[in-house]
Formats: sequence, C-alpha cells, structure tokens
Amino acid sequence: MASTKNPDSKKIKKFVELNKKHKSDLEPSKLFSHLRKGDKSALSQAITLTESSKEKDQEKAKQLIQKCLKYSGKSIRIGITGVPGVGKSTFIEAFGKYITSQNKKVAVLAIDPSSEITHGSILGDKTRMVHLSNDPKAYIRPTASSGSLGGVAKRTRENILLCEAAGFEIILVETVGVGQSETAVHSMTDFFLLLMLSAAGDELQGIKRGIMEMADAVVINKADGDNIKRANLAKAQFKNALHLFPAKESKWIPQTETVSSLENKNMDKIWKMICSFESSARKNGWLFENRKNQQVYWMHEAIKNALTESFYADQKIQGELKKLTDQIIKNEITSHEAARIITDNFKNGKKKI
Amino acid sequence: MASTKNPDSKKIKKFVELNKKHKSDLEPSKLFSHLRKGDKSALSQAITLTESSKEKDQEKAKQLIQKCLKYSGKSIRIGITGVPGVGKSTFIEAFGKYITSQNKKVAVLAIDPSSEITHGSILGDKTRMVHLSNDPKAYIRPTASSGSLGGVAKRTRENILLCEAAGFEIILVETVGVGQSETAVHSMTDFFLLLMLSAAGDELQGIKRGIMEMADAVVINKADGDNIKRANLAKAQFKNALHLFPAKESKWIPQTETVSSLENKNMDKIWKMICSFESSARKNGWLFENRKNQQVYWMHEAIKNALTESFYADQKIQGELKKLTDQIIKNEITSHEAARIITDNFKNGKKKI
Repeated sequence: MASTKNPDSKKIKKFVELNKKHKSDLEPSKLFSHLRKGDKSALSQAITLTESSKEKDQEKAKQLIQKCLKYSGKSIRIGITGVPGVGKSTFIEAFGKYITSQNKKVAVLAIDPSSEITHGSILGDKTRMVHLSNDPKAYIRPTASSGSLGGVAKRTRENILLCEAAGFEIILVETVGVGQSETAVHSMTDFFLLLMLSAAGDELQGIKRGIMEMADAVVINKADGDNIKRANLAKAQFKNALHLFPAKESKWIPQTETVSSLENKNMDKIWKMICSFESSARKNGWLFENRKNQQVYWMHEAIKNALTESFYADQKIQGELKKLTDQIIKNEITSHEAARIITDNFKNGKKKI
Repeated sequence: MASTKNPDSKKIKKFVELNKKHKSDLEPSKLFSHLRKGDKSALSQAITLTESSKEKDQEKAKQLIQKCLKYSGKSIRIGITGVPGVGKSTFIEAFGKYITSQNKKVAVLAIDPSSEITHGSILGDKTRMVHLSNDPKAYIRPTASSGSLGGVAKRTRENILLCEAAGFEIILVETVGVGQSETAVHSMTDFFLLLMLSAAGDELQGIKRGIMEMADAVVINKADGDNIKRANLAKAQFKNALHLFPAKESKWIPQTETVSSLENKNMDKIWKMICSFESSARKNGWLFENRKNQQVYWMHEAIKNALTESFYADQKIQGELKKLTDQIIKNEITSHEAARIITDNFKNGKKKI
C-alpha cells in the first residue's frame, strides 16, 4: 500500500483536513486513524470531544474510546502531587524533558477540580512549560475540566486511554490537594510521586492526611543553592518516616530523592527509580493486577455515582435533607433513621416528599 | 415518691422482672427507665434488641433509641485499634480498671466484621477481661454482630447511644484492622488510639495504610522486662514520624506513650492524655463540630447504602456485573460504559437485564 505521492503533500493534506473542519466534526474513525499515528492535533481534538458536554460529542467520544481500548494500557502512569509553590510545573518540565531525551514520548494531564475557583492553577498556563510543550515527543493538556471530581476523574481516565492509543509511553497526571483529587489520581496511576520542599515541618501542614502513605516516591524539590543541606536533611527525615509505614501491595519500598528542577539535577535518578519500579511491578504481576482492580473499582464508583446522583439532584430531596440534617444535629433523630425516612420516600415515589 | 419498701426488695423485684421475661419482651419504655438508672442487665437487653434481625425487635430498638437520643452524647468516645497480638484486651482491662478507679463509668464495645471468620477474635472471650467485667462501674459487650461493616457500624453507633443514656462516661470501641473497620471506628469516636509493639518495623506490616495518620495517640504496649529499652526507642521513632504528619483539625498534636498492661504501668498517663484532649477539644469547639459532622456523614453513608443495597442484592445484576467485569478486565469496555449499561438497565426496569 505504499503511496507514490510526496510524503509532504500527505502531511499538508492532513493538516488542511484537520483544520478546515470544526473540531468535533471529524468522524471518530478518521480521528482514530490520525490519533493512532501519534498526531497531537488529533489527540487534542479527541480530548475536546471527551470534555464536551454536547450529547453528540459524547457519543463520538464513546465510539472513539471504544476503538482506542485495545491499544491502551501500555504506558506507565505516574501521579504527581504537591502543595502549590512546591514547583510541580518546573519539575514536570525538567522531568518531561529528561524522559523525551531517553527517546520516550510523554503526555501530561491534570486533575484540578478547583479550576473553577483558581481558574486552573495547574497547567493552566502552558508557557510555564515552554520547553516541554514545544518538544515533539511531548504532549501537554492543560486542564479545561470543571465540575464534580467524579466527572473530572472520568474524563482524565478517558484521556489517559487516548494518550496511550496515540503512542505516549509515559503519562504524568498532575494534581493539587483539593477534595479527594489525590485519591482519584492514585486510583488511576501506577506510581504516585509526592513533591515536597525541604522545610518539611511547615510545609506538611498543606499536605492532606493519607497522602504520604500513598507515595511511592517523596521527591524534595529545589535542592539547589543554599537549600542543598536542608533538602538532604529532609530526605533523611522522610526516609525514616516512610519505612515506618506498612508495606505496599506492590512490594515496592517507597524511595526518597532530592532534585533541582531549576538545575535539572537528579532527573536521571527519578527516571531510574521509575524504571526499576516498572520492572519489579511487571515481574511480580502487581502492575497488571492493580490496573485490573482499578478498572473494577472505577466501575463500582460510577455505579454508585449513577445511583446517588439522581437522588441528590432532586430539589425536594435537597429540602428534606436540610430539614433532617437539622434534626440530626439537634439529636432529635439518628442518622440511620433520617436516611431510612428519606430513602423510603424516594423509593415510594417522590410525591410523598 | 420515696418508697417505704426495703430497697433490697425493689432490687429483687427488678431482677425477677427482668429475668422472668424473654429478653425482647420488655416494653421499650420500661427498658428505657431501667436503662436510665444504669442497669447493666437492661442495657444488655437493649443491645440485644438492636442486634436482633426480627422486625418486631427492630421496631422496639428504634423506639428505645429515639428515647435515648437526648440523653446521649455526653461521653468521651475512644477508638482503640492494633494488630492481633498487640494486647488490646489486656490493655483495655488495665486501662478500664484505671478509669473506674477514677470513679468514672466505662463501657467497652467492639467492631469485628471478621467475627464470622475468626469467631469473634476480639472481646469474644469475656474471661480475658475478668477483672473489668466484674467491676460494677464497667460494662463489656462482646461483639455478637456479624454481617456487613455498614450494619455492624450502625449497631455499634446505636450501642454507643444506649451506653451513654445508661450513664457510661467513657466508651471504648475496640477494633481489629479488617476491611474498613478502623475508618468506621474513627468516624464514630472522638479520640483514636493505636496500640503498637516495640518491634515497630516488623509489626507495622500488619497495620493498614492510613491508620497511623488517624491516630491521636500511638501507645507502645508491653513496655516491661527486657522490652523497656526497645519500647522507649519505638516511642521516640513514632514521635518523630508523627510530627511529620499534617496537623489535625482538632489542633491536637498526636502523643506517644509506652505502657505495660501487665504491670499497670502508665495508665495514668494515658488517662491524663485523654483528659487533656477532651478539655482542649471542648474548648475549641472541635468535639461538638466533629460529632455533628460524623452524624451527617453517617446519614449520607446510610443513604448511599440504602440506594446501592437493593441494586447489588439483585441476582440478575450480580450475573450482569460478572460479565461486565470480565469485559472490563479484557479491555473490551470502559469502566464507565459498563456502569452506564448496568445502571440504565436497572433504572429502566429489571426485566431488560
């Protein structure tokens, strides 16, 4: 099937075709074939489809994702979290560049359920990752998502599948500690990296409970200049603290490392750490087992969401809930009895409420 | 209303009355008035009612709890957890005796969702707390509950209310780390005490993730004989580790302590710790605020349970879930799509499935 045409003319034709149409006008099968070739513009369009609230787009997105499924799952998925100011963007830029220098393709996604409030404090400004975003082997998708964590998480998981089908081998999913976003990211990634600063005591105030125990790596950023000594001290402290935690199912022993994103220091060590994790987690079967469990987990989450969504969306239920909550707080009724009353009314038809 | 009768004859009459009837035959209002006087036999019967699966008993239990509500909430509720072998029973015996020596009434409850498997590994054998169970100021209820954690947790919360209405000032809720039982206990208590052994590194293997961060106190048991030095070392290690955790909403800084349950050592320190916690948590309003949040939390949990219970109990749904889970694992369908299919079918009537 070798074409005799000039390959450049093919490229131009594709470029024109992709740009003359409205983003959501491309047929899923066409978008799919461009995407499979690693076309970043097609990937962006596909992601825009998954994030669209139009029913037509949602249907297309569904078809597209269905096609992508059997080409997905081949990447290593890395969750990255840390409080604002820890330098997540500069770290991802430096680490992303290191990944592409290893001839690997990297995609960067983000979960930021706060984006409506913070106007997308993470990845919102692509210019913060100017080198990485211009790298042909990298793809960065700023978070455009808003809405409930459930919705944002669903779209991010779909976007992981799309990036994988487009040939990206490393997926970085960035999040800030808002609501349950770290737990969501932890449940859709293989490796969880917690970015920290050296002034551990103070800075930890911003880290939510349970995050440290999720970490496969605690990476102390800004280990440069006057900060090196303190960073090494923090590294030692975290190392001591981490070994007090229960062993992980993956059998991976969480690592600590210092980096300087500014000076591109120790990015090789983080990369080696992740390669070593991947190799061991593949060998002992945990990587596959965990992904299987994650997928089943998300199905049950989606079922629970679907079952409770229509309940909580009901305006009459909302009024009734307010009344019952007041009664509970005043110790006039037990939590369980309140739940029984309201769900019984719901099951027996809303007219009773 | 002073009676001219011999008080002993009153006691005997009550004893006979309580024992001649079948446990669940007493009317809720009668049971309530006995219970309010601190009658442990009435308390036991009340708890038996809440744990009964008979509809008639459940209705009585509901009425009884409703009456108790306004007399509840006055105790300090303490969750106690630790791996099997750490000495929870001996600790509770020693600590409980210390509490009663302070002229306070203590009730001991347990959550053990594994009891069907382990045949009630915790509190199952009252003889393990022989001194405490014979103490007039103490009440011990071995776990008879089985079934889902949701059900066990509901009954335990009800039993806390009953114990409080019966005048118990300190409630100890014991659990082993099975499933989500610690989280459940943490969500129904004010103070969470993690019992540990000195051989921290190895023993931590049995402690589930997230438990350490829940702890308001890490207490190292068996600090006696040759073990004292190691226990002190473990205490120092945990102290270091704990201060790396994020600050608690209660503003309480988690404490570490060594005890010997065998030698009754340092029980006074644990008691002082809890008194100091109570005083600060009352002063800053957290105690009240947290209980309010816990009650609302349990209402939403009960709502979610009620909404999902009938779904998952459906045999056709179970079959369908199995099929969809297989498809998910084979990457033939996304988690979300699987959830959509099955909940749509459920909503549109079960005949479609």
